Amino acid sequence: MTEVSLLLGYQDDTFSHDVAVALQTVRPESFDYVVTDLPHVGGGLNIQTRSDITVVEAKWWRTSVVGRCPGSIEEWPNYLPWAWHMNLPAVILPTPDDNIPQYSQQLASLALSALQEAGGSFQLWVPVSLDAASIRTWQKIISACQYPSLVGVLLEIPPIDGDPREHMTKQMTLLHNMIGCGPIKSFSIRTSLFLTNRQGYPTLAKPHQYIIGYLLKRLGRTLKVLLINDTAATNRGNFQQYLQHLRNRDSVTAVLDSSNAQDEHDYLDALQKPLQPLQDHLLFATYEVFEGDPIKYQRYQDACRSFLIERQAGTKTLVLVVGAGRGPLVTAVLQAYRASQSATLLRVIAVEKNPSAVLYLQSKQQFDPLWQQFKVQVVQSDLRSLEDQFCQQADLIVSELLGSFGCNELSPECLDTLLKRCRPDVVSVPTRYTSFLAPVSSLKLHQEVMAQSFYPDNNARVVGQQIAVETPYVVRTHAASQMFPEQTCWTFEHPTIVDDTSRKAKLVFRDNRGAIACGPGYGAVDEMVASSEVDTEPWIVTGLLGTFSADLSPDGVHKISIAPHSFSVGMFSWFPLYFPLQHPVHIPPQGIIDTSIWRKIDEKRVWYEWMATVMDADGNLLSTTPIHNPGGRSSHVSL
Amino acid sequence: MTEVSLLLGYQDDTFSHDVAVALQTVRPESFDYVVTDLPHVGGGLNIQTRSDITVVEAKWWRTSVVGRCPGSIEEWPNYLPWAWHMNLPAVILPTPDDNIPQYSQQLASLALSALQEAGGSFQLWVPVSLDAASIRTWQKIISACQYPSLVGVLLEIPPIDGDPREHMTKQMTLLHNMIGCGPIKSFSIRTSLFLTNRQGYPTLAKPHQYIIGYLLKRLGRTLKVLLINDTAATNRGNFQQYLQHLRNRDSVTAVLDSSNAQDEHDYLDALQKPLQPLQDHLLFATYEVFEGDPIKYQRYQDACRSFLIERQAGTKTLVLVVGAGRGPLVTAVLQAYRASQSATLLRVIAVEKNPSAVLYLQSKQQFDPLWQQFKVQVVQSDLRSLEDQFCQQADLIVSELLGSFGCNELSPECLDTLLKRCRPDVVSVPTRYTSFLAPVSSLKLHQEVMAQSFYPDNNARVVGQQIAVETPYVVRTHAASQMFPEQTCWTFEHPTIVDDTSRKAKLVFRDNRGAIACGPGYGAVDEMVASSEVDTEPWIVTGLLGTFSADLSPDGVHKISIAPHSFSVGMFSWFPLYFPLQHPVHIPPQGIIDTSIWRKIDEKRVWYEWMATVMDADGNLLSTTPIHNPGGRSSHVSL
Ligand SMILES: C[S@@+](CC[C@H](N)C(=O)[O-])C[C@H]1O[C@@H](n2cnc3c(N)ncnc32)[C@H](O)[C@@H]1O
Ligand SMILES: C[S@@+](CC[C@H](N)C(=O)[O-])C[C@H]1O[C@@H](n2cnc3c(N)ncnc32)[C@H](O)[C@@H]1O
Repeated sequence: MTEVSLLLGYQDDTFSHDVAVALQTVRPESFDYVVTDLPHVGGGLNIQTRSDITVVEAKWWRTSVVGRCPGSIEEWPNYLPWAWHMNLPAVILPTPDDNIPQYSQQLASLALSALQEAGGSFQLWVPVSLDAASIRTWQKIISACQYPSLVGVLLEIPPIDGDPREHMTKQMTLLHNMIGCGPIKSFSIRTSLFLTNRQGYPTLAKPHQYIIGYLLKRLGRTLKVLLINDTAATNRGNFQQYLQHLRNRDSVTAVLDSSNAQDEHDYLDALQKPLQPLQDHLLFATYEVFEGDPIKYQRYQDACRSFLIERQAGTKTLVLVVGAGRGPLVTAVLQAYRASQSATLLRVIAVEKNPSAVLYLQSKQQFDPLWQQFKVQVVQSDLRSLEDQFCQQADLIVSELLGSFGCNELSPECLDTLLKRCRPDVVSVPTRYTSFLAPVSSLKLHQEVMAQSFYPDNNARVVGQQIAVETPYVVRTHAASQMFPEQTCWTFEHPTIVDDTSRKAKLVFRDNRGAIACGPGYGAVDEMVASSEVDTEPWIVTGLLGTFSADLSPDGVHKISIAPHSFSVGMFSWFPLYFPLQHPVHIPPQGIIDTSIWRKIDEKRVWYEWMATVMDADGNLLSTTPIHNPGGRSSHVSL
Repeated sequence: MTEVSLLLGYQDDTFSHDVAVALQTVRPESFDYVVTDLPHVGGGLNIQTRSDITVVEAKWWRTSVVGRCPGSIEEWPNYLPWAWHMNLPAVILPTPDDNIPQYSQQLASLALSALQEAGGSFQLWVPVSLDAASIRTWQKIISACQYPSLVGVLLEIPPIDGDPREHMTKQMTLLHNMIGCGPIKSFSIRTSLFLTNRQGYPTLAKPHQYIIGYLLKRLGRTLKVLLINDTAATNRGNFQQYLQHLRNRDSVTAVLDSSNAQDEHDYLDALQKPLQPLQDHLLFATYEVFEGDPIKYQRYQDACRSFLIERQAGTKTLVLVVGAGRGPLVTAVLQAYRASQSATLLRVIAVEKNPSAVLYLQSKQQFDPLWQQFKVQVVQSDLRSLEDQFCQQADLIVSELLGSFGCNELSPECLDTLLKRCRPDVVSVPTRYTSFLAPVSSLKLHQEVMAQSFYPDNNARVVGQQIAVETPYVVRTHAASQMFPEQTCWTFEHPTIVDDTSRKAKLVFRDNRGAIACGPGYGAVDEMVASSEVDTEPWIVTGLLGTFSADLSPDGVHKISIAPHSFSVGMFSWFPLYFPLQHPVHIPPQGIIDTSIWRKIDEKRVWYEWMATVMDADGNLLSTTPIHNPGGRSSHVSL
């Protein structure tokens, strides 16, 4: 693996008025940016001239300088316009004081001006220390401001307080909370927090190493780091090397630099409309990406082999691969057959409704030796109206019609319609799938949902807030924290025929032990942090995170899952489904979240409705959201 | 200069069903893409399987394959969905037949589906031969379809017809017309059009060389090229080399590969809202870009030197640089003074209202030796309310408050207000500036204007068509043709005080000799084509192109201009101002365009209104547009 650099900045009061000197000094030592105090441009006599602006080109200011607003936040109109003038990427605001309403009011109007004057990629960093009191203050401020998209946190790593082990556990809890209610844009570490090792080099105490390592694992792909020299240290380069060393530890690079991690980069916290493979035709490239999954097809193959191994020699076995796409599950069946050494007489039929995919399947049939050998048959049809002759002879139905939430690509309806017409002893791979839900905290995702409301829709109107917040999104959660272990919503099982595929679930989340281990709600639980304490701090829930697991075979031996507690490591075919809440909701320590979710169906559509209610430990109502998406008015899946 | 490649494709019926073989064969010979016949995916029995789809990865289809729709355009539903499935960048449609309404109806619905299914970057290429009849057909079709953004022209170079000189002249006229009413996405040349030179290599006749050279000069930065092998030629590589040789000629590389040309790339046909330096504060980076102009400041310096040379030794001379920005005109004055060897006692005051620019000026004053030497004084003030003491002593006022249309950044109002309070013998650099207008044809720009209507505005509503078409845009015109020599609208002169800065102009365009030489309406007239004939073909006007010229000194010796007939070569500070017409308007051969434009003013705003009327040579009314932007309802400049 190549050495990957931190995005590391440097702040030092001796440099803070001369970017030319600062950059010349620290860039050769592998710092990426420097912090400069914004000059006063409010008019008046004592203008602070500076020589750096007459010599440093625009491109440096735009990429390698972060501003700092001197004075109190009320004074921003005298300072911030210069930051916009220079196109600085970010400005560090003064640390909030005790007058929270005042700070919030100023920040709200600053955020609004900044959006207009500097545009959406400018950032305002509010310094927040990783301690309970500061986080509570921050939650009040950011809520009062209504979570403006430009505003984020510069997280300050505090000194170790009391017993190192306890400190560390406490910090982990706070960090998990803070990742949700940031968004954390950057973190700062002061030179005064460093120790000196025997060779005289700067080093950090274990709890600090651990916290920073964890922070990098969670957010290292988007986070900036800031070294603040508050000890007049002259050996900057040693600090840089030490921080880089933390970044380069195996445990961190394993998470940040894997090829999976790199492929994911553009998807982090990016909301996508869920695919509708029934209504729409998937693209060639989409199938190609699916087929790169190293886990999914292997599991399917294993499940099919278990089935085929049981088939008597000489009997006929008809396998229908329904929704075959470009045919990877057909290939999986054929390979399973070979691996099973079964002597059943295999016949495989691929059923697909996407005409372009059918063309592919036909071509595969003609040009792939394995397919030719088995005389794979290709049928262009909606599987719900497949000819009777195929249905009645089928022994095994293999399909993958699963969405991020399991049932949200209409696997239940499609398979039920087909299976009704098959023999009752037919086996379905998958045999059953379960939907999970968990409250999640992510102001980042909330900001992204709000941004959706400004997009134009197909009719050239802006989407608007109602539709934006009543739509579930597929998203690779990142600046997000799952705040309770996920709970089961419902399970669909095949070939059991149920007449009604509507569902409802009421889930009460009250014990969040183990939540930290769920990280952002995507990926396997992290055993390293599994033991940490119940969250005793107030936090903010912004949405519900939907995931699923599936038993591919009736015996439940072969599974796939994207629920954290059963996650199939290495599988990348599904990201979670995020159900937004209209407004972020506050949860006090030991608070209870009572969520309800409905799966509704009519002749043409399936949709979800959801809501959440917050109570204190004694069950007193604290807040409630409306029911989202009533009657499927904002989002649905077409049958 | 490095060798720059054409974006060259290859079409050959022997390859047209196997992209794998086609790419393997022609990519080593420097072809970038191949053409493949779309397979029928409409269902039914005779599915055309193909082996290439099972082996060629998605990325190749997306980048290096253009589809061709076999059969007639009615059949597109059987073919096009596969192109979208494969993410092909473009599809070549069948050549229009005589049933124009039928073709148009099919194309309109295809364009709509394509936008929904394949998205905005997909292209539909309609083959149009560069001859009068085909262009007339094309104009009817594209107008009936309402100019959908995905649709463009694959221009086919025809054989030489009749006398080569006449053919060439005629082709130039048609090409200038076609660049406007395309947009031309690509052009094709058949191997059958090539001659064989004495060494046995393919070569083109002079008229073909000339036409292709000209096409490359005009559109070479965005155009794709397609070599069609219709002679079963096997020496593809020789054709590629010959076309590359046409691309690499000095006359072409001088236009396409200059550093100016490269800097412009992202701006070609990209609509920008005009700057409002009075209402808004310009950015540091914007000033920096301005200051890179190699012509503008030199001309200003020359004009100031002419003034200073005349000043008597020993007299005092006060120069006010108003709207000084970061001070380049201050430096120009100081350098002019040195160059003039004048012995007048020079005092320079820089006046600027942008506080961040003032900070820069102050810093310059403190740190720049030249500025220090002359004790340049910096005053933060709106120049309209500058203190009396400065006004009355001023001998020379230097300013650059000019927009693309001259008066559209409110130079007249700002300078008049100031000059009223100065001595009557004060000199202003610039002394006068003139606005020009010319009808322009560009369906590309029309498509861009329509796209504007879908953008969200500041209040999160979509802009809408009315505002989109009633806003003038700054744009580096490219896929555009100026169709008449520009005419003068009005001139402002300083220090002559006029009480009314509103203006109107009625311009009748009836003789378009020399229009081809104006090219896209940006850049100097091209002497090489200046002699070509009057346009005798019908064409389409989509908007009016505003430009300006300025006399910097009273004697008119020192000028700057972006009007094609007086263009300051090398100057890049201004692109033209495009006034859209609500709907493209048809002009018959010898047709007359009667345009009116008003410059209107109230207490707080200045705005433009415009309209156009089309008549035949006898003056009969053919069509008229409404008055755009009445009362400044859609766009204005704030005073
Ligand atoms: C998620 S993709 C899976 C494709 C492939 N089996 C794989 O695993 O890569 C689902 C496929 O099922 C197809 N499909 C969905 N609903 C269908 C239906 N009702 N009838 C036939 N095909 C259907 C879609 O066109 C799509 O190709
Ligand atoms: C087009 S820029 C030219 C800047 C600089 N002279 C140059 O040539 O690069 C116009 C400048 O005039 C300033 N300006 C415009 N209207 C002004 C006014 N009424 N009073 C003072 N400054 C003004 C703007 O802030 C801006 O800096």
